[in-house]
This record gives sequence, structure tokens and C-alpha cells, in this order.
Amino acid sequence: MAFTFARRIQHAPASFLGELFRVSADPSIISFAGGLPSSGLIDTDGIAAAARDVFTADPRSALQYSTTDGYLPLREYIAERYRRRLGIPATADEIQIVNGSQQCLDLFAKIFLNPGDRVGMERPGYLGAIEAFSLYEPVFEAVPLDPDGPDPVAFTKMTKETPVKFFYGIPNSQNPSGCTYSQDRREEIAECLDGTDTVFYEDDAFGELFFDGKPRLPVKHYLPGQSVISGSFSKITAPGMRIGWMYAPTEILSAFNTAKQAADLHSNFLCQQILARYLQTNDLDTHIKKIVSVYSRQCRLMCDLFDDLMPRLSHTTPEGGMFLTATLPVGLSAMQVFREGIGHKVAVLPGMPFFVDGGGEDTIRLNFSNAGEDQINEGMHRLAGVINGLSRI
Amino acid sequence: MAFTFARRIQHAPASFLGELFRVSADPSIISFAGGLPSSGLIDTDGIAAAARDVFTADPRSALQYSTTDGYLPLREYIAERYRRRLGIPATADEIQIVNGSQQCLDLFAKIFLNPGDRVGMERPGYLGAIEAFSLYEPVFEAVPLDPDGPDPVAFTKMTKETPVKFFYGIPNSQNPSGCTYSQDRREEIAECLDGTDTVFYEDDAFGELFFDGKPRLPVKHYLPGQSVISGSFSKITAPGMRIGWMYAPTEILSAFNTAKQAADLHSNFLCQQILARYLQTNDLDTHIKKIVSVYSRQCRLMCDLFDDLMPRLSHTTPEGGMFLTATLPVGLSAMQVFREGIGHKVAVLPGMPFFVDGGGEDTIRLNFSNAGEDQINEGMHRLAGVINGLSRI
Repeated sequence: MAFTFARRIQHAPASFLGELFRVSADPSIISFAGGLPSSGLIDTDGIAAAARDVFTADPRSALQYSTTDGYLPLREYIAERYRRRLGIPATADEIQIVNGSQQCLDLFAKIFLNPGDRVGMERPGYLGAIEAFSLYEPVFEAVPLDPDGPDPVAFTKMTKETPVKFFYGIPNSQNPSGCTYSQDRREEIAECLDGTDTVFYEDDAFGELFFDGKPRLPVKHYLPGQSVISGSFSKITAPGMRIGWMYAPTEILSAFNTAKQAADLHSNFLCQQILARYLQTNDLDTHIKKIVSVYSRQCRLMCDLFDDLMPRLSHTTPEGGMFLTATLPVGLSAMQVFREGIGHKVAVLPGMPFFVDGGGEDTIRLNFSNAGEDQINEGMHRLAGVINGLSRI
Repeated sequence: MAFTFARRIQHAPASFLGELFRVSADPSIISFAGGLPSSGLIDTDGIAAAARDVFTADPRSALQYSTTDGYLPLREYIAERYRRRLGIPATADEIQIVNGSQQCLDLFAKIFLNPGDRVGMERPGYLGAIEAFSLYEPVFEAVPLDPDGPDPVAFTKMTKETPVKFFYGIPNSQNPSGCTYSQDRREEIAECLDGTDTVFYEDDAFGELFFDGKPRLPVKHYLPGQSVISGSFSKITAPGMRIGWMYAPTEILSAFNTAKQAADLHSNFLCQQILARYLQTNDLDTHIKKIVSVYSRQCRLMCDLFDDLMPRLSHTTPEGGMFLTATLPVGLSAMQVFREGIGHKVAVLPGMPFFVDGGGEDTIRLNFSNAGEDQINEGMHRLAGVINGLSRI
């Protein structure tokens, strides 16, 4: 029989990621195309010990159904960390546990978007968000990013002429660009939105990964009642447990909780308990310092190799996170570089899927967290061979 | 600021479950209102041992990101079990891992429903499905259940006059009624749907829990290309890991997978590995026999106590599962019994939320899996006090 799917799924953007994953599975390829944190930096011993504790303490509770909002000690830890790190008056009842912050994208769009509603995005914007939001059939308004954040003129114009239900941004070490909003730009955006009906959705997957170890004040600091922050343990402890959270005003969180309950009742309770135990018995700050020192070196190495080996290419210089974006020399296309790269056993991610309104053909995204220094060195030499070879044609 | 939520969430049915959970948290109350499997029957030692094995073998992989479809050995186990138990030619590429079968409800509705599309439901129908589907703004068509399954006349009428995108049913030990479709009714329904554009969605949360230990052939056996089955480990291993699956034709599964990726990338990989290891090193059949023998005794005790203590009330007599439904004597309302019950420290679930088109005011659902025999005995005596007291008024 022929199945008649909903309009939303018929119009889902064809995901390039399937091809990418297939291609990158070849172990002889050095891949900068993915988005994995370093497996080597996962504290497997610490998490294993926490798991043992949970199985010793009260495994029947950890393995039973639980409440939709999430494990209270974990929500309290998250709220306390906001208060301590950022001086933001978060409380546990403003925190909802989810299956990694990707689920925030789905549920937030679900509670806010009717088909045809407008959503503001950075240009380029995060692919996972574009995929999640697209299923609710919005109209995207893309605001170009400059090195300090969303272009203020375009942002103001959007606010006045085509107001959006919410604006989705990644102020800290943005994916894919690697850029971080300046503090002034955060204030400017908050002022621009203050008093409008637009919510600012701050995806903060990377805020703990600044190379200088210093936290940046979120947009929410300037716009407390009108913004939400999604957070994730994937980059600072382990992605495989799929635990993230939404931090939002209680009115939003109440609708969000209804959607979460309908979506899957609650997140994995065993792992919520393991993670909470891990955080109680280990110093997350010390662990994060270790991650940051490795990513910082890997990022600098990648940038240096770009400058040394591919001087005709320009690239962003991240202050943190896991990604940077490079702009190819005139005449080169990202798809050429991707395909030729695969032939030379190095994978990069073409920039087009990050552009909701087209473009990006001359950009590639590179991940520097999941390849060690030797691999980065070898991979960048391979990439230089590709880029410089294609440039000469 | 005032937030303008999407239409779908503004119209979400007010969940009665919140009040219920608050009320049932009082430890002095004996609750038959919830839907938990027995904590005492969770094999905590076996799962702890499996967890130790996973942390010993390759914890970096278990804690890293993984693929959307799910852990292959787990999908192979599920497919092999369908082949062995039911003689159905399932393969791993027809299985998608999800966060408990509740997530199947959300994602299935997401890929099939445009607002206003029709969905067929049993009357009474599963509350969790009503909540999940409602967010996609369908029109529900309710087909009354008789003891053998959906009423065939009403089912045929629906198929001809108000055809639905899919019909959602629980043929095995239905929630809330406790009824099981007869084999003839399954065939009849399959014949009725064969060649139409309606998909049969078979929620099989309880198919492993028949008291006689005998599997029933699913509707999918008679309608292979036009039906899907959702399954869950929550009732046969542990709910806290939130692992279930969708078994569907690959064309449906491909769209389902797209929605799953957008929703949360993939399900908890650590627990997928723990569960797969557990299933490789333990005999699930033996474990299920233990569960079934306990639930069977508890169910019989509850039925007997109804007959002995509350003869004016009628009730279903389940062949398996975790629930039964009772119909109150004329003149009594479920809300009266619920409220008076709380006063007498016994909780039951009023039937109304299971009726998409109103009704059910004279029905209550009782769970018999999560209270031991002593509790059932004491709780049913309390309930008899309530029922018989109210009947005399």
C-alpha cells in the first residue's frame, strides 16, 4: 500500500547527514565532519563508579518509572550551577530534564509553532535545530552572523517588520561558525527584544567549553522573563546517556512538561541517577578544565595548519566549543572539497545545510574535538592537498 | 510577558494525572490508580551485572553518541524474538529503538497526522495515546470495545463512512479495559482494513504477560504490510531505562527514523547496551514466567474480592496484563468513588479520560501489578467500604 504521510514529513529537508555518516564510517578516513566530543576524555571510571553506587543504593527506584520533570537532585545541581557560575537566580522548578538538548528543540517548537509561524535563526544556523523546527512547518527568518553575533541592523529589521515567535541562537561558540556573541551584542539583542512577543532561545551546548575558562553572561541575564536556555551534559560528561535540560520561566516549562509527558513520559531515570551521583562525587570543574585544555590545543593546531598550509582560505578562530567554519578560496565549492576529500581520506562538512535560505556553498565546517593532534596534523595536510590541488585547476 | 503557545498545546486535554500523582504520593494510600509494573520483580542483580559488563567491555563506545536507529544487537534480539515467539518474519531493519513505547505514539502521529486527520481509537482507549495524538490535532473516531475487541459493525461503519489515517488498538490485555481481542476478531479487523489506506497500529505493551503463557497472533500477522507494532521492555525488564521499539514496514520506519532523529538524535545508548547484555546473559522467558505467575495471582485475588465484597459492581476478567476495568452500580460516579476513596486511603482511576468522546463516568480502572496480595486484600476491603457506603446513600 502507499502511505500518505503528514505534510511536515513530506517537506522535511533531505538530510545530508545520512550520506555523511556512511562515508565517515570508513576507519581510514580522518573525519572533521562529525560533531562528537572526544571519547578519550569521557570519565568512564568515574561514571562506572557512580553506576555501581546507584545499583547498590536503591536500584528498584532507579529502574522504575519516574516523574516527567526529572530527578530532583539533578535539577537542583543544574540550578545551583547557574547560580554559582553565572549569578543567575535559577531554581530547580525552572529546570526540565530531557533526552539531550536536541529534545529541547523538538518540544520547544512543538509548544510554540503553528504552521506558518515565523522562527528567527542565525545564518548560518545549527543544522539539528533546522531539522527539528522544520517538522513544525515554520517560516524561517535568517539573520546573518558577524564575528560579534547576529547583525544588529538585520536583527532590528526582523523584529520590526517580520516579528518571529522565537529567535534561536547559540551565543557561545556557535555551531557551525565557532563565533561567540560579544557582551555588547547580547545586551543589544536583549534590548531589541525587550517588550516584544519574541522569546529568545539560547542553546548553550558549549558555554562550559571556553578556552579561557571564563563564563560569558547569557542573553537571559539581560532578558530574564523572556528567554530560555537549553543545556547538555553531552559535551561535559557523556553524550551516550542522552541527558540535557531546558531552563525556562515556569509558564513555558509547564507547557513544555505537557509536551514532554506526551512525547516519552520521562527521560531515562537510571542514567539521571547515575549522572547525579557522578556529579556529587566528582569535581565537574576539574574535569571540564581537562577537556578545555585538550580542545584548546587541538583548535589552535587546526587554525595554525590552515594558516600555514592553506593561506588562501579564511577561517574563524573560536574562543571555545568544538567547531570552526572555513570559507573557501573563490571558485571552490564545498561539495567539490567534500567529494575530493573523501578520495583523499579526509572528511569535512559542506556548509549548505546550515543555511535555511540557501547559500553557504563556499563554506565548510570542521570539528576539532574528536581528532587527536596527530590526526589533525595528518588530516589537515590531506585537506591542504585537496584545497591546493583544486585551486590550481 | 504573555506567551502565545501553539494551538495544539492550548487544546491539550487537561491531564487528570497530575492530581492523581500528587494524591497517590501519600504512602498511607493503597493505590490501584497508577500503571507501574511491580518494582519487586525487577531483576536488579541481573541488570547490575550487565551494567558492570558494559563498563568493563567498551564504556567509551557506550557513553558516546550513536546511530538513530538503535543498537544493532538489541534490534536483532527483538526481531529474532518475533520470529521465534510469533512466527513473524521480522528483521532488524524493521525495528527502531525508542524511549519506551510512549515515544512511538508521538513519532507515529507526527509522521502521519495533519490537523483534522481522523484517528481511530478503542472506546475506552489508552490515555497516554490520547494525550500524545491530541497534540497533532486529529479528529478521533471511537469504536466501542466488546469483550472480543472493537465492535465489528462500528468498525466497518468507520472504515466505510469516516475512514481513518490509522486505527490505534491494544489487542492484548488492553489498557484500560483488560480485554483481549479474540483471534476471530483480529482476522475480521484485518479483512476489513485490507486494501484500504488505513494503517493498523498495534500497541503490544502486554503481549508477553498472558497468564496462560501463550502468545496470541497479532493483527499484523493477517495484515503484514499495512500494520505496525510497538513494543516495550518496561513491563518485562525495567521501565526506568525507557527502552521500547517500533516494528514497522521499512517505508514507514524511514519516515519514523527522520522524526526520531529530529526529536532526540537517538535513545540512551548506555542503557541500550546494558539491556542487550542483560538479554544475552539471562533467560527472559524464565523471568517473564515469574512476573506472570505473580500478576496472575494478584489479578485473580482482585477479581475474587470484587465478586465477594462488591457483588453489585461488574468487572472485566483479564487474561493478562496489568489492568482491569470495573463498572459501578447505577447511581454511583467514578469521581465520587475516587474522592471518597482518597478519604478511605485507597486510590482508583476514574474512567473518563479514556473516552475521547465523553462517557465513562461509571467506570474505574484498577491496576493489579504494583500492589502485593496483602495490599490488594486491604485496599479492596477499603474500596468495598467506599462503594457499599455510597450505594446505600
